[in-house]
Amino acid sequence: MNLHPGTSLIQPYAVDLDLEMGIMKNAKQHTVRRASDMSGHYADQTALEQLIKDGDPVHYEVFECLPPEEYGQIFFCISTLQPGKVGDEYFMTKGHYHTVPHTGEIYLCLRGEGYMLMKTSDGQFAYQRFHRGGIVYVPPYWAHRSVNTGKEPLVSFCTYNAEAGHNYGDIEKEGFIKRVLEVSGRPLIQ
Amino acid sequence: MNLHPGTSLIQPYAVDLDLEMGIMKNAKQHTVRRASDMSGHYADQTALEQLIKDGDPVHYEVFECLPPEEYGQIFFCISTLQPGKVGDEYFMTKGHYHTVPHTGEIYLCLRGEGYMLMKTSDGQFAYQRFHRGGIVYVPPYWAHRSVNTGKEPLVSFCTYNAEAGHNYGDIEKEGFIKRVLEVSGRPLIQ
Repeated sequence: MNLHPGTSLIQPYAVDLDLEMGIMKNAKQHTVRRASDMSGHYADQTALEQLIKDGDPVHYEVFECLPPEEYGQIFFCISTLQPGKVGDEYFMTKGHYHTVPHTGEIYLCLRGEGYMLMKTSDGQFAYQRFHRGGIVYVPPYWAHRSVNTGKEPLVSFCTYNAEAGHNYGDIEKEGFIKRVLEVSGRPLIQ
Repeated sequence: MNLHPGTSLIQPYAVDLDLEMGIMKNAKQHTVRRASDMSGHYADQTALEQLIKDGDPVHYEVFECLPPEEYGQIFFCISTLQPGKVGDEYFMTKGHYHTVPHTGEIYLCLRGEGYMLMKTSDGQFAYQRFHRGGIVYVPPYWAHRSVNTGKEPLVSFCTYNAEAGHNYGDIEKEGFIKRVLEVSGRPLIQ
């Protein structure tokens, strides 16, 4: 068999998810982001600081299994974003570009509701709704951030090229063009 | 924004699945494989021919949405394999390598039970169980075939590199090393 330089031959394996709880049972990496990890991302920094003082709740968790970071391998994760607000702004993820910018990502929503906000580095903006059974295709070049507008956890299964990498720094500088706020009891993208 | 040659900038989009029925509601491509499409794959060709005469039932359906076949784009599909047997052998998919052999595939099982059989072109064999919430990681180089050993449809969500392609021809020639048969009322890989 011809092996291609840069793509390892590894053994197949299996991983178990709890699709309702949004948990990977034997994850290789478990990332937890609390309110205190989100400084600078919300419009209302005072409300965020109060939330941190009031117990610094978990915003979201990401469970990942990490094959080699090589062409042809695929990363997959399950992400669970809690419901809540910082001021009038719904809980959200930091959002990121990929370090290899011309790689996309698939999100399959398994529970909850919300929005995927997307932007390009030259200022294009787009969004799609999250709901159970909905797939959002995030094409190459698009930064992406999840927002939970519901009352239960927003659970998504995600896959992307293993070599894609995460670039959070540019979003910290640029922001995301629009925000999702509760206005008169309903989510509004503005 | 710098675009990379060979990877288009397209707009984000969304697609809806019925996670229980195993259907993509606005699929771009819908493939249906019946018993008559499976000639040569089962050990008991006489039983297959009888099944074709008795109504040629659907074996499996694949619903796909097809971004450009370019580096960095990701294909995704939902696949529904019906329960049943051909002689003592459980219903299964044809199985395939990827045309770009050093690309993998992720399967997330949403309903049902069964096995993923996997092989390499130099004769290595592996399998993993399918059950609701189970992910099977099919690494680059591994051909893969799903087998439904349960009494209800086996529903899987799959993603892979958009440029991977399907190579069915080599499996038609090589077979799959092992089969999944019902022996004394239980599945046996042999």
